[in-house]
Amino acid sequence: MKNFSIEQTAHIVPENVVTNNDLTAFMDTSDEWISKRTGIKQRHISNQQTTSDLCLSVAENLITNSQYNVEDIDLIIVATMSPDYMTPNVASMVQGKLGATNAMAFDINTACSGFVYGLKMAQSLFNDDKISTAIVIGGEVLSKLVDFSDRSTAILFGDGAGGALITKNQSHGQYLGDNFETYGDMGRFLTAGHFNTQTPFNQMLDTTPLSFEMNGRKVYDFATTAIPESLNKALEDAGLGLEDIDHFIFHQANARIIKAVVKKLKLDPNKAPINIDKFGNTAAASEPILLDEVIKNGAVAKGQTLALIGFGGGLEIGTVILKY
Amino acid sequence: MKNFSIEQTAHIVPENVVTNNDLTAFMDTSDEWISKRTGIKQRHISNQQTTSDLCLSVAENLITNSQYNVEDIDLIIVATMSPDYMTPNVASMVQGKLGATNAMAFDINTACSGFVYGLKMAQSLFNDDKISTAIVIGGEVLSKLVDFSDRSTAILFGDGAGGALITKNQSHGQYLGDNFETYGDMGRFLTAGHFNTQTPFNQMLDTTPLSFEMNGRKVYDFATTAIPESLNKALEDAGLGLEDIDHFIFHQANARIIKAVVKKLKLDPNKAPINIDKFGNTAAASEPILLDEVIKNGAVAKGQTLALIGFGGGLEIGTVILKY
Repeated sequence: MKNFSIEQTAHIVPENVVTNNDLTAFMDTSDEWISKRTGIKQRHISNQQTTSDLCLSVAENLITNSQYNVEDIDLIIVATMSPDYMTPNVASMVQGKLGATNAMAFDINTACSGFVYGLKMAQSLFNDDKISTAIVIGGEVLSKLVDFSDRSTAILFGDGAGGALITKNQSHGQYLGDNFETYGDMGRFLTAGHFNTQTPFNQMLDTTPLSFEMNGRKVYDFATTAIPESLNKALEDAGLGLEDIDHFIFHQANARIIKAVVKKLKLDPNKAPINIDKFGNTAAASEPILLDEVIKNGAVAKGQTLALIGFGGGLEIGTVILKY
Repeated sequence: MKNFSIEQTAHIVPENVVTNNDLTAFMDTSDEWISKRTGIKQRHISNQQTTSDLCLSVAENLITNSQYNVEDIDLIIVATMSPDYMTPNVASMVQGKLGATNAMAFDINTACSGFVYGLKMAQSLFNDDKISTAIVIGGEVLSKLVDFSDRSTAILFGDGAGGALITKNQSHGQYLGDNFETYGDMGRFLTAGHFNTQTPFNQMLDTTPLSFEMNGRKVYDFATTAIPESLNKALEDAGLGLEDIDHFIFHQANARIIKAVVKKLKLDPNKAPINIDKFGNTAAASEPILLDEVIKNGAVAKGQTLALIGFGGGLEIGTVILKY
């Protein structure tokens, strides 16, 4: 057991709401079709804000609403698959605008699993005497990776950011266990963000698009198999059982995946909150957005035990068990 | 002190060599101009291989030439600012093709400092009982971020990958200390990999190019100031002095930066090897390529103390002191 206290959470989504009906204006789809297959009713799509704008807003919120000052922040981790730039990374942009002069800062990319990998990084770096207090953010403007003429993927994704301010200097929260698995042999079933080489020297005939391409069936099969496995391994690592978990914070990829897992593991559906109806799939942002919601609405209380399960592109999965 | 033994190193560069003279075929420059200002004589530019191809080759090499099997690998970290995709990440692609079924895998992005941040991540994750042996790779196909009509930046960058297989199960190597600093307020002086939002909802008038843009003077001033500071802080963390370091493995951004730092710190130039003449600036790949070279050519011997110093886009800097 290691001190790992979430002192504050925050989330933000762009103001611009795009409902399923809004999408019918430029693609052949319907609210009923989308709702039934995904659980999504609407998503927020940025028309002004970049990923770093959203992440900065979350970071400012975390500091304003906590007992910590920017100088206290030793570490800023941003999990994203849709950064503003390849350099500077989003974490440095946030660090610079925040004025967090003492913070080590870096981006990690494990797509939809990003936030739980970020929690693991923070917990690991807490072994360093120089690092006590961290901000971990998952932030995305996925819409820039979306082909809005492809109705099979365009309906799924949304923009947003969420994060947590975590410290090892308090003992109310504990990092109890985890599991991380990689299934790179299935990586081709979910791709995005490819850009082709345009140099005078290039001989590659690669026509992969920049936008999302997904084999939904394969990803569904992966998720509904890998989630119970990863969860069980993480519980074993923590020395706990399914019955010890008060809330399961699943990545919001598709309501059907979560419902299938809830059924398979015979979980109380009330312990597996869903908010994909409002936000769509926001990749690395999905879990911290949900975590902030369930903490702020009082569903999650101090002292409870949470399992956070991220899964998706890679393909990858990660589960973190912690006492809030 | 923590067990951190580099068991094997490897590097690869694409076959295609582009000399300074080759560049004069399509831009107004000269070998003399480039050599004098940067120390670069040639670079390798991929015409067939992607970042994951190069990284996979390094990983295969590391395993083939070490006593370890793919199943022994618990962790694969790829530091890159030029991944094939935003998902899957490069680390998962390497994991899948390698068949490293037990490996946690993720990409980090701290641009040119990536490899030293990767070493820090590996060392931190070694605190986990489940993680003992790691592959850390810096890999780039930077040429896809280069505008070959811009002679101020196109001359600088090259493609390649390098890496190390590291274990905590051996005690000959030690992680002695480190320092990491972020200067996000200066991030605008070195940008690359921006892509604009093309959604029907976008209202942003952002015309930042995909390719590298750099304020060379600002980056030079940053590097020559920040390197001595970071090095001194890392030495203090390790309880060592400059005289205890046998070799300084500097990121190869520009030979003039390294020479200025060597002069400022009164270092023996023989302790600060330079290979930028052959490879150009390969960002996250530069330090592991150089490390592999100086180990393979016998300049670095077991038991010696190394300082690895990465710096660049972010702007960020990181120094790791280790006993090889």
